Amino acid sequence: MNLIIFSSQDLMDGKNCLRLTGRRHRHVLEVLKGKVGDELSVGLINETMGTGRVIEIDDKSVTLEIGLTSDPPKPLPLTLILALPRPQVIKRVLQCASSLGIKKIIFLNFFRVEKSLWQSSSLREEAIYDQLVLGLEQAKDTVLPEVILRKKFKVFVEEELSEIIKNTLALVAHPGASEDCPQKIKKPVTLLIGPEGGLIDYELQKLKDLGFNAVDLGPRILKVESVLPFIVGKLF
Amino acid sequence: MNLIIFSSQDLMDGKNCLRLTGRRHRHVLEVLKGKVGDELSVGLINETMGTGRVIEIDDKSVTLEIGLTSDPPKPLPLTLILALPRPQVIKRVLQCASSLGIKKIIFLNFFRVEKSLWQSSSLREEAIYDQLVLGLEQAKDTVLPEVILRKKFKVFVEEELSEIIKNTLALVAHPGASEDCPQKIKKPVTLLIGPEGGLIDYELQKLKDLGFNAVDLGPRILKVESVLPFIVGKLF
Repeated sequence: MNLIIFSSQDLMDGKNCLRLTGRRHRHVLEVLKGKVGDELSVGLINETMGTGRVIEIDDKSVTLEIGLTSDPPKPLPLTLILALPRPQVIKRVLQCASSLGIKKIIFLNFFRVEKSLWQSSSLREEAIYDQLVLGLEQAKDTVLPEVILRKKFKVFVEEELSEIIKNTLALVAHPGASEDCPQKIKKPVTLLIGPEGGLIDYELQKLKDLGFNAVDLGPRILKVESVLPFIVGKLF
Repeated sequence: MNLIIFSSQDLMDGKNCLRLTGRRHRHVLEVLKGKVGDELSVGLINETMGTGRVIEIDDKSVTLEIGLTSDPPKPLPLTLILALPRPQVIKRVLQCASSLGIKKIIFLNFFRVEKSLWQSSSLREEAIYDQLVLGLEQAKDTVLPEVILRKKFKVFVEEELSEIIKNTLALVAHPGASEDCPQKIKKPVTLLIGPEGGLIDYELQKLKDLGFNAVDLGPRILKVESVLPFIVGKLF
């Protein structure tokens, strides 16, 4: 936790006092070894960031006097569309995408996505929120990404996707594609990463028809939580 | 597991029959739902890769008839020097580095590395081996990386490092450095990633004196297992 993220509900009267309980209280005590007088990095969710000076610690809470002066870093100009992965991977990929500065994440169904995965408790609103916040705390950012679930590939592609990819470079990661992933590009990107078993021909064709470029990422198959920073590193 | 890795000890008489037990037996049955006649990707550790046709399955083992015809992918031309992280991170970073094709990984001590971390069971030879193999299985590679432990920063830097960085671009990831991480480069790299709390001035100066360039990676602080693919994506 490089940044302690709080919401306006954590603020006490006067608006410049912050009270932390639960996980963040324990973190200040156990990991940061916080003492009265210490200055910690804090950020108001979806708002500005700054420092909080510890003014009181007890066994239930930590109180900080805060000053918020700086803006969060600029969003990464990338929309991520991802085949719904297994529950443990959902968690890791949300945290990873959030830490990379991605602000729009769409989980999409594909032929090779097991239908039962859509019942995963990792997709509950609070579970998603928790992982996104962990990513922001890691990266020192406050802006919560938007997460969208789409269970119908065809409907999504035909009714929503052309609007999403407008004015962006639309890429689909596809092992064996003849084109390499572009590097150092200067425009926004829509990046689609398919399921572990790959896209079926129909899915790839639908995406190509809409203007997606299939790109290869080299001879090695990486985990989705590795491939994501790998591609982001290449693109920007 | 995109590639089933085996050693010559797993081979039966005749040299083209492979018997899998334990974890790999369960994987073939439970994840791959393997049946007699199926063809699976297999690779001999540090050697060639190919396919194995399932010829027998029982409740203890799977037997495959193998043909090894292709070379593993080329190594990534990058030597990784990493401040020793926490045990859980050691595991993830070994797996990640191995999947990226890195073939030389040096864990190094720094002022801000807790000394007790050197006692971690994640540094036992078998524990390291297991994680490296998981990375190779993921990436479809057979060449086991070399892992080196160095507990003395000064001795390592003064006696070994100049030989390691010879004919490579030597980079140290350093938040706030004036230079950005280079992209699309054509030569081998030595990449140093310091501890969570950063390098102390003395350490950074020692590295700069030797020829390292300090490079910035943008405004966000990423986990080491995200920053590694991020940098590799940028560089190559």
